[in-house]
Amino acid sequence: MKFTGLLLGLLLLSAEVFSQKAYHLASPNARVNLTLNVTKEGKLTYALNLAQTSVVKPSSLGFKLQKPAISLTNFTVISADSSEFSETWNPVWGEVKSIENHYKQLKLRVKAIPANVLVDVVFRVFNDGIGFRYEFPEQEGFKHFVVADELTQFNLATNNKTFWIPGDYDTNEYLYNTTLFSEIHALAAAKKEKDIALQSLIADNAVQTPLMMKTPQGIYLNIHEAALVNYPVMHLMANTKTFGLTSHLTPDAVGNKAYLQTPFNTPWRTIVLSNKAEEILASKLILNLNEPSKIEKTDWIKPQKFIGMWWEMHVGKATWEKVGGKHGANTENVKKYIDFASGNGFDGVLVEGWNEGWEDWFGNWKEEVFDFVTPYSDYDVDALLAYAKKKNVKLIMHHETSGSVTNYERRMDKAFQFMKNKGFETAKTGYVGRIIPRGEHHDSQWMVNHFNRVAAKAAEYQIMIEAHESSRPTGLHRTYPNWLANEAARGNEFNNAPTLGLVPEHETILPFTRLMGGPMDYTPGFFKMHLNQFIPSRTTRVRTTLAKQLALYVTMYSPLQMVGDLPENLKVYPDALQFIKDVPVDWDDTKILSAEPGEFIMIARKQKGQNQWFVGAVSDENSRELLVNFDFLPSGKTYTATIYQDASNADWEKNPEAYQIQKVSVDSQTKRTIKIAKGGGFAISIK
Amino acid sequence: MKFTGLLLGLLLLSAEVFSQKAYHLASPNARVNLTLNVTKEGKLTYALNLAQTSVVKPSSLGFKLQKPAISLTNFTVISADSSEFSETWNPVWGEVKSIENHYKQLKLRVKAIPANVLVDVVFRVFNDGIGFRYEFPEQEGFKHFVVADELTQFNLATNNKTFWIPGDYDTNEYLYNTTLFSEIHALAAAKKEKDIALQSLIADNAVQTPLMMKTPQGIYLNIHEAALVNYPVMHLMANTKTFGLTSHLTPDAVGNKAYLQTPFNTPWRTIVLSNKAEEILASKLILNLNEPSKIEKTDWIKPQKFIGMWWEMHVGKATWEKVGGKHGANTENVKKYIDFASGNGFDGVLVEGWNEGWEDWFGNWKEEVFDFVTPYSDYDVDALLAYAKKKNVKLIMHHETSGSVTNYERRMDKAFQFMKNKGFETAKTGYVGRIIPRGEHHDSQWMVNHFNRVAAKAAEYQIMIEAHESSRPTGLHRTYPNWLANEAARGNEFNNAPTLGLVPEHETILPFTRLMGGPMDYTPGFFKMHLNQFIPSRTTRVRTTLAKQLALYVTMYSPLQMVGDLPENLKVYPDALQFIKDVPVDWDDTKILSAEPGEFIMIARKQKGQNQWFVGAVSDENSRELLVNFDFLPSGKTYTATIYQDASNADWEKNPEAYQIQKVSVDSQTKRTIKIAKGGGFAISIK
Repeated sequence: MKFTGLLLGLLLLSAEVFSQKAYHLASPNARVNLTLNVTKEGKLTYALNLAQTSVVKPSSLGFKLQKPAISLTNFTVISADSSEFSETWNPVWGEVKSIENHYKQLKLRVKAIPANVLVDVVFRVFNDGIGFRYEFPEQEGFKHFVVADELTQFNLATNNKTFWIPGDYDTNEYLYNTTLFSEIHALAAAKKEKDIALQSLIADNAVQTPLMMKTPQGIYLNIHEAALVNYPVMHLMANTKTFGLTSHLTPDAVGNKAYLQTPFNTPWRTIVLSNKAEEILASKLILNLNEPSKIEKTDWIKPQKFIGMWWEMHVGKATWEKVGGKHGANTENVKKYIDFASGNGFDGVLVEGWNEGWEDWFGNWKEEVFDFVTPYSDYDVDALLAYAKKKNVKLIMHHETSGSVTNYERRMDKAFQFMKNKGFETAKTGYVGRIIPRGEHHDSQWMVNHFNRVAAKAAEYQIMIEAHESSRPTGLHRTYPNWLANEAARGNEFNNAPTLGLVPEHETILPFTRLMGGPMDYTPGFFKMHLNQFIPSRTTRVRTTLAKQLALYVTMYSPLQMVGDLPENLKVYPDALQFIKDVPVDWDDTKILSAEPGEFIMIARKQKGQNQWFVGAVSDENSRELLVNFDFLPSGKTYTATIYQDASNADWEKNPEAYQIQKVSVDSQTKRTIKIAKGGGFAISIK
Repeated sequence: MKFTGLLLGLLLLSAEVFSQKAYHLASPNARVNLTLNVTKEGKLTYALNLAQTSVVKPSSLGFKLQKPAISLTNFTVISADSSEFSETWNPVWGEVKSIENHYKQLKLRVKAIPANVLVDVVFRVFNDGIGFRYEFPEQEGFKHFVVADELTQFNLATNNKTFWIPGDYDTNEYLYNTTLFSEIHALAAAKKEKDIALQSLIADNAVQTPLMMKTPQGIYLNIHEAALVNYPVMHLMANTKTFGLTSHLTPDAVGNKAYLQTPFNTPWRTIVLSNKAEEILASKLILNLNEPSKIEKTDWIKPQKFIGMWWEMHVGKATWEKVGGKHGANTENVKKYIDFASGNGFDGVLVEGWNEGWEDWFGNWKEEVFDFVTPYSDYDVDALLAYAKKKNVKLIMHHETSGSVTNYERRMDKAFQFMKNKGFETAKTGYVGRIIPRGEHHDSQWMVNHFNRVAAKAAEYQIMIEAHESSRPTGLHRTYPNWLANEAARGNEFNNAPTLGLVPEHETILPFTRLMGGPMDYTPGFFKMHLNQFIPSRTTRVRTTLAKQLALYVTMYSPLQMVGDLPENLKVYPDALQFIKDVPVDWDDTKILSAEPGEFIMIARKQKGQNQWFVGAVSDENSRELLVNFDFLPSGKTYTATIYQDASNADWEKNPEAYQIQKVSVDSQTKRTIKIAKGGGFAISIK
């Protein structure tokens, strides 16, 4: 095993005497370079270069514990082990059929002085970045411990262009801010967000991960975490003067961060980096740092396209609650959705507002809200399941918890058993509101454990999960492939939020930020852009062109894709709807054709098991031309490409629903420039 | 309906203008006299007299809310309704076969100004005291609310002799302090308690209920609460200068007290009073203020006498955990307990330490501890159940939660189903340690709801419950008669606590305090007083005579009575053991023959459905002679009384195990003086 560190003389030193040491580790392709240092004061630091360029300056590692009340900040090195690992594995579903996992690893066993606590600091260096974590081995005299603070630094070398949202323990549904790192002001940004019901802001310099940046030299880097298990969500505190970031863990009700017991491994802290933006989007580093599937038999797990009894409520056509005569989830209405799904080949129908509790569900930190098994009297669950079965459509269950998680946990077994007995296969969970146990946050250790527990328990019942209002994903869908998607960011429902709504650039940032951790149930597919259909006074609107809505099915990867708009609106443009009918939700291969965060993204994907390709491209508020190089196609074959693009006079603001469709022949030699309108995009299906 | 209030002119007043009003309400026998006043500032007060003697001076009522942020302290009277109620009801089990519930009621509908919140203040006046509560009716504009503080006062008229324990959110396992009210110093008292693992003290002037007092005029009064449902435990803050008490509710993790929604009724605040101590012990006021049984079919609920695989661990013969070779709950050892129970006619055997988790269960605020269904490998649950069945003995399940209640709640259904499938009928629950959800307390609203939820859920499975380390009972065993007993006070296990242990007076106070709310699993039945049997260096000991241990089965009422000592110790005194074999755990009638809190208690009880009587008498650290008047016996019949009393040279300190037994003939004319040793007692069975 090749190892470039300087281990000479290590065994000659007393463990109690600090001595300066340095270790170097390079990625398999030698471009990503890591340096670990132990200073003569015992400080343990790492630094990161891409080729010769410093990206992260020496940044220290450590912990402050609450119990025992000690600091783990000064270390002596006990041993250093290096290794190299390479494998290829096949995800149950995903953007690609197989994933290469190739890294070099350095495991530094250190002893914290004077507490005499052993910690293994493990670094993995991939061609597209690094992951590192703290491992607390079983050891004498140190078993249970409570974390006061994790003291991991990310000291950036430069004042980067930064795509950030405010640090918040309870929500990640912010619009992204694009500023220089030195100009981060989280509280000011958060203050503008009037449509987020529950904010738990941290500080003016707190930001969330995945944190996307671009250096003045043009290096793209993304800081996040992988495999968040039994530990709180990591936020980051920015020092806008020094360009430093420090980990900030989400506290529990009494201010502690994590209750741990050896042996314990923290989540991986990840830095994905490249001088090509496309390689950030293509990175599988976070997935590779997660554990393989814990579910052995996976044939019941199926990517899905579905429509929702959901947008009706947002636009004021219907209500969740069975109060006031406009209850959406009534048997007759849901049958229409089943008919529509069946007629268009969609797999499922999500029904929200089906169960008792909605009449008084939100805003009062109320514990007993839903029981998850009692339908409203006008919702004939058995008749609808039978009807759906006849039409070859699955009903998707909705478990809104109102944030009352203790209530959900004590009822979860019965709720999943109810689903199993009835034949439901997928549950959308929701966590709107302040969390119960009171004092816990969406991002605290207890809730992280809850989200993982739901995935594990659902798997026992062979149920698939998508979680809304959860903490943001960290690649755990590798471990629990029944955990299809999360919301955990600002989704399309914000189109109807009166204050800021969504902005055209949003979808050019999300893949570089939120989606780094895993799929998002972004619910695209809007054909009617002005949302005054049922309440004429409404001024809310979708801020994309129609063609961009189609493109999102390719650019916003998820194995679970909703078709967002109402059936009556989707029917207005049957030729555009055809793309949504055609586009799959599982892929053999993915090519990031070109991308720049905050500006545009263009991606080509090959349908799973089919020789069909789909391309999607989205732009920010600017119109642009993108050159599509069809060289991703196998050479020597000619395909028919159906191009769904913005009409020449389309514009997200003034003429969003104008699109044009053309069929052309393409092969691997084809290069074609396609124009995108302001806030627009295009989609191509290639058969 | 008779009503003595002054309601004239009420309808002529504007609701917004305060005006002085007074209402008087007397008990059915006219001895307990209540006066309500609305001052001209809108303050609502009550005052309480026994006959002509003032016991509680004008004491105000009200609330401070956290959400909405308003005070409910100034009121106008909307209406006043008086009524009288009388019924007789039969408990499923108890000290008496039937209970009279007779009171006069005044329901004052008041409106808090300026918040315009309607509150019904309901007072019930019984012959032995009062109960009052706040009822929040459904009303426009006031639905969900969060309580910051309840502002209920109990302004005592005099500097009473007070039997108190320190206010503590997490434990009630203190020795009682007997001082003048003016000399309450909770923190100093709590500081001496070295053997309570978890203290959450409130303040130097905070005390717990039931709070027992005796006025200088010789009136006994007891302040507590009844029907504690969906509300935190009430502690009391004492003003030692003015002799005032104010309610102090247990906070949750974020400092709030209760999350409520109209219609809502608070628990009843109770004051039991009499100039006879015996009438305090005989009071059924708290039971009467609870709701009738929610369990319709109750034939599966059975009072029980049992032995425990439990004391072995306390005295160091065995361990709960299967570590170190002394695991108590192994198949062979439990069979011996089954044999002993069967041989002596006991109903059950409690087995602690039967399940995985004990090897690392305490002190680390750890969430995943026990799963409640996985026995240790040396505990053959099926074989033991079969063996017990053959011997006509029931095994009692043990659910120690380690305070990790979220873990218990999510596993509770499976745990009860496991019991049901196997044939267990009774579970002892335990809550040792800091509560999870972290930040909640044993006494907070969330935990009160949990304890009630356990009783309700257990009833679904026809399982009986006794809860250790719970909040103290408030008569809810009327509503959930499957909730047989609680610990919720300092029990016999403290005999083995090295610092203070138990003191002889303890059992003369408990019936006046802790037992006012409901039965206690006090675990009497110790024959071996020095606890150095297995660890010779131990100096801990039981501080009673052996005869007093027998008496406790009568004086400490519970439908669930453990026989505390080890089989090998109980076998040493077979003639004394005979009393424990004979004494029943359910009664047709009870006569409190004589009592003085902190000094002595003598009680006679008639066995349920049998013409057999049992008498128990206990003393404090003083020897005394008690005159037993057998006039509780039906006249004209002669009975054989077997008297188990202290030997003439017995003494709790120097000669605790010396007793004598004699058989005598008695009838309703018999009067007999029996001597009690220091720390002693006597027991009589009468057939």
